[in-house]
Amino acid sequence: METLSHHDTAILFLSMGILLGAARGLGELARRLHQPSVLGEILAGVLLGPTVVGHFFPEWYAEVFPAAGPTRVALEGMTSTAIAFFLLVAGMEVDLSLAFRQGKAAIVVGLVGFLFPFACAFLLGWSFLDKIVGNSSADPMVLALFFATALSITALPVIAKILMDLNLFRTDVGTIIIAGAILNDLIGWNIFAVLIGMVESGGSTLLNPLPTLGLTLAYALALLTLGRWTLNQVLPWLQAHTSWPGGVLGFIFTLALLSAALTEWIGVHALFGAFLFGIAVGDSRHLRQRTRTTIDQFVSFIFAPLFFASIGLRVDFVSNFSPSLVVFTLVIAVFGKVVGCGLAASWCGLSRRESIAVGFGMSALGAMAIIVGLYALQLGAIDESMFVALVVMAVTTSLGSGAMIQRVLKRRKALRFTDFLSSSHFVASLEKVDRLEVIRELVERAVKGTSLDHEKVIETVWRREQLMSTGLENGLALPHARLADLERPILAVGISRSGVDFDSFDGQPARLIFLLLTPREDNGAQVEILADIGRRFQDARLAQQAAESTNYTEFLALMRSHEPAEVNPTPAVAL
Amino acid sequence: METLSHHDTAILFLSMGILLGAARGLGELARRLHQPSVLGEILAGVLLGPTVVGHFFPEWYAEVFPAAGPTRVALEGMTSTAIAFFLLVAGMEVDLSLAFRQGKAAIVVGLVGFLFPFACAFLLGWSFLDKIVGNSSADPMVLALFFATALSITALPVIAKILMDLNLFRTDVGTIIIAGAILNDLIGWNIFAVLIGMVESGGSTLLNPLPTLGLTLAYALALLTLGRWTLNQVLPWLQAHTSWPGGVLGFIFTLALLSAALTEWIGVHALFGAFLFGIAVGDSRHLRQRTRTTIDQFVSFIFAPLFFASIGLRVDFVSNFSPSLVVFTLVIAVFGKVVGCGLAASWCGLSRRESIAVGFGMSALGAMAIIVGLYALQLGAIDESMFVALVVMAVTTSLGSGAMIQRVLKRRKALRFTDFLSSSHFVASLEKVDRLEVIRELVERAVKGTSLDHEKVIETVWRREQLMSTGLENGLALPHARLADLERPILAVGISRSGVDFDSFDGQPARLIFLLLTPREDNGAQVEILADIGRRFQDARLAQQAAESTNYTEFLALMRSHEPAEVNPTPAVAL
Repeated sequence: METLSHHDTAILFLSMGILLGAARGLGELARRLHQPSVLGEILAGVLLGPTVVGHFFPEWYAEVFPAAGPTRVALEGMTSTAIAFFLLVAGMEVDLSLAFRQGKAAIVVGLVGFLFPFACAFLLGWSFLDKIVGNSSADPMVLALFFATALSITALPVIAKILMDLNLFRTDVGTIIIAGAILNDLIGWNIFAVLIGMVESGGSTLLNPLPTLGLTLAYALALLTLGRWTLNQVLPWLQAHTSWPGGVLGFIFTLALLSAALTEWIGVHALFGAFLFGIAVGDSRHLRQRTRTTIDQFVSFIFAPLFFASIGLRVDFVSNFSPSLVVFTLVIAVFGKVVGCGLAASWCGLSRRESIAVGFGMSALGAMAIIVGLYALQLGAIDESMFVALVVMAVTTSLGSGAMIQRVLKRRKALRFTDFLSSSHFVASLEKVDRLEVIRELVERAVKGTSLDHEKVIETVWRREQLMSTGLENGLALPHARLADLERPILAVGISRSGVDFDSFDGQPARLIFLLLTPREDNGAQVEILADIGRRFQDARLAQQAAESTNYTEFLALMRSHEPAEVNPTPAVAL
Repeated sequence: METLSHHDTAILFLSMGILLGAARGLGELARRLHQPSVLGEILAGVLLGPTVVGHFFPEWYAEVFPAAGPTRVALEGMTSTAIAFFLLVAGMEVDLSLAFRQGKAAIVVGLVGFLFPFACAFLLGWSFLDKIVGNSSADPMVLALFFATALSITALPVIAKILMDLNLFRTDVGTIIIAGAILNDLIGWNIFAVLIGMVESGGSTLLNPLPTLGLTLAYALALLTLGRWTLNQVLPWLQAHTSWPGGVLGFIFTLALLSAALTEWIGVHALFGAFLFGIAVGDSRHLRQRTRTTIDQFVSFIFAPLFFASIGLRVDFVSNFSPSLVVFTLVIAVFGKVVGCGLAASWCGLSRRESIAVGFGMSALGAMAIIVGLYALQLGAIDESMFVALVVMAVTTSLGSGAMIQRVLKRRKALRFTDFLSSSHFVASLEKVDRLEVIRELVERAVKGTSLDHEKVIETVWRREQLMSTGLENGLALPHARLADLERPILAVGISRSGVDFDSFDGQPARLIFLLLTPREDNGAQVEILADIGRRFQDARLAQQAAESTNYTEFLALMRSHEPAEVNPTPAVAL
């Protein structure tokens, strides 16, 4: 087995293709159901792994995902690289200066929000875990330490995504949560790194981890101060004197890999080096948004799904599912984070409601708990049932976090007009050319299948239209009305090939006409959706392209590929 | 060796980091010297491999790039994936409809341009290779077949790059070369795929390759007709209904991997499947430019350098260097392509000069010859010295091709104003605010170190300025003059914080002032450079950002990261 034969290579491509395809497919399905895509990616692995496919088709499974041999080693190499790159991206999202600018509140929430859950989980884990897990061969103290770490590191990318969805990202509560999570993660990964180094060196009884700890802290400090400053100086030079964007891309990935190798050599885990380097380089104001986006897209949509799907290959999730262990883990995780962070926020002067929101915000444990669990499993520090419990806990807390904040703060998701598009409310080529007639055409389309009286709707829309024209620049018109008998907003879209006079400011005829009907008590939905449409079509070129769409799919594809960046800044990294 | 230990993972990251860093570094250096970056990437591998580092520091080399074991297997898996992705991108650049639109000329050049060199190389190789190579254990016929294939497949990406550099891409000669190369590659990869399948199945005497050949052609045909049509239908749907750009990215890489695995299963090489799928998906008019760019950038700047550097790890290039074999290979390669394609072009009615240009255009054998050689080496069909000869030949023909076309057609590279920027001719903050004074300031900077009389230069520029102001929109001004005693163009750039009245059309003061001095007999250089500057700063936002640069590096970084796409459409794929 000196090297990969052609047959091994083919199996490697096949297994990667299947993993990636299933992960992306179920990831998209999860998104459709308004869940994080990583949920689908993990599920894809569980289905393909020993739990389902391996259970029912053992021979096929052994052929495509062999348990040993060169293909297995190569796939491991690929997923290890994937997870290192994932942590690089996670690190790049950490904004250290934000954390420091927030001052006291962030520091208190970050510190207490780490220490409290860590202490809870460690003490409860040490006392009870061996009773629940049963005759585990693992050292109970090491087990408890990993358990505590997994339950204390937050999943920064998920949290950022949740806050953005709820339009909370730039609020006080939002920045405290983010800044707290940044500090939290910084502490957490340091502890994790030292813990791994300790176990690997055989010093599983906390014997002599000091040199490693010292080197780790020294490296982290050096990278985040001097390293960060140097990177900020080097980036503009690279952009000026090397090919674009290859110079910067190659530079970032080279140093991420070397930093990963270096931390491993120090004795802590390679992932820590990738994460730290990500923070250092991500903080540079010279790093261009386009470089970030390229890295982010490739890692989030190719490497991360491969990694998350590969998790499911490792364990049988059915036979290792221990309900008591899952409940134990879940309760401690939520209790530790909500109480710890909530109290910390409350001390810093936030209202009770806001404090609870901070608590739930920080309770999204997501991908990070899974990564911690994975390495503990590989080291033999935890067993399969504990790993399964951590994965279930991670997924559950991430799913629950957003819902709880929403409930506590009574926030709802930001409304995007694209969420209200549908092919049955789309008219690719309006027949009429007169304003009232076009409104009639769209209203008829919009109210079809509802109990609304369309003459009354037309009258309401027309009355609003006469108060002041809804024609805007770039050939856009937004006729709209609030209606008493409506439950949720309806949006109909019509494209006029010849243009319709909507008396717009710039004198141009309207070619893209959006008819929006909202409930009388719409809690700001009308304003929000209209503003979203208006904002999107300030881009004259986009408006023109949209007006030239010949069918719904083309129109929708165009809208999707021009979603403003902020809607989905951390695409698949989010769990 | 069931799986990768943490130590193995660290070595994997270290070796990848070193390979990538060295490859990108030397790749950039090559670009500086106006050579294709892949030249540097290959050189990086040669330096790191047994030729230099392995020779002088054998222990360090064995530690970081072990010859066997899990790290080696994982690195092989990574480079195999890299090359599959590279061929995916190469395939995406193939525009089948272009080839067909060109009709007869392209078909004749493509066919004859493949068959003539193939026949030459096969016959000469069969007759003489065993005498030159010495007591090779390889089957002389198989050796001759691989030799002929390696000398007949052109390197489409290099050719495209060369033609763009010379502003020939959209000319008749240019499209005939590209279309011919597309057909050429299509035939070549089919033959290569069948050849590999034949040797692997043990049928090294042409025994029974028919089923494989049939399946291969059937798959190629199905993918390029039905598959291509289906992909074109599916892409808009994916863009409309999945997350952007993850849906499309995941889809493309999944199917590329599966197509690679499928062709391997048929019995031909996996690379062929990736290449074919690339053609099928790349031809879709629904594939967005941004998706192409993301894939292209990541593959060209991360995967491709890893692969090309890894080539050098395989062989000692010094001890396996056989001068007679290198000369033999090089002469046949150039002779076959230049004569074969030249004659074909001539038959199609091109002038003698153009025919020779077509011949030299098609003679860039580049990366593809290396890939063919690599697989032949792995199969034992050729030996190390033959592989070294192929690599040297590939690099030499790619370097020579552009120079020869340039000479034959008397074309020069398209002029970009960025090639004339220099920090000594940059004034970050102009002191003066009067038009003449500012011109004086810039002229003084421009003529420093030359024998030009600056008063005379100022007078010439000012006379031109008074004929008609050179102030343009977006705060741009382009004072310029042709001078008798100048050898090459000089460009000086000044930024005015307060603005200078250049009597521009939109009444705005000039903030970005470019002073261009060109030789009297400048062969269109003045017009070309001025047009390039004007075009670039039609983008008002870019002009504003440029005017806010505080130093030369910042200004240059901005210009580089906004190079128009066409300048470098096939970044590092080019050898």
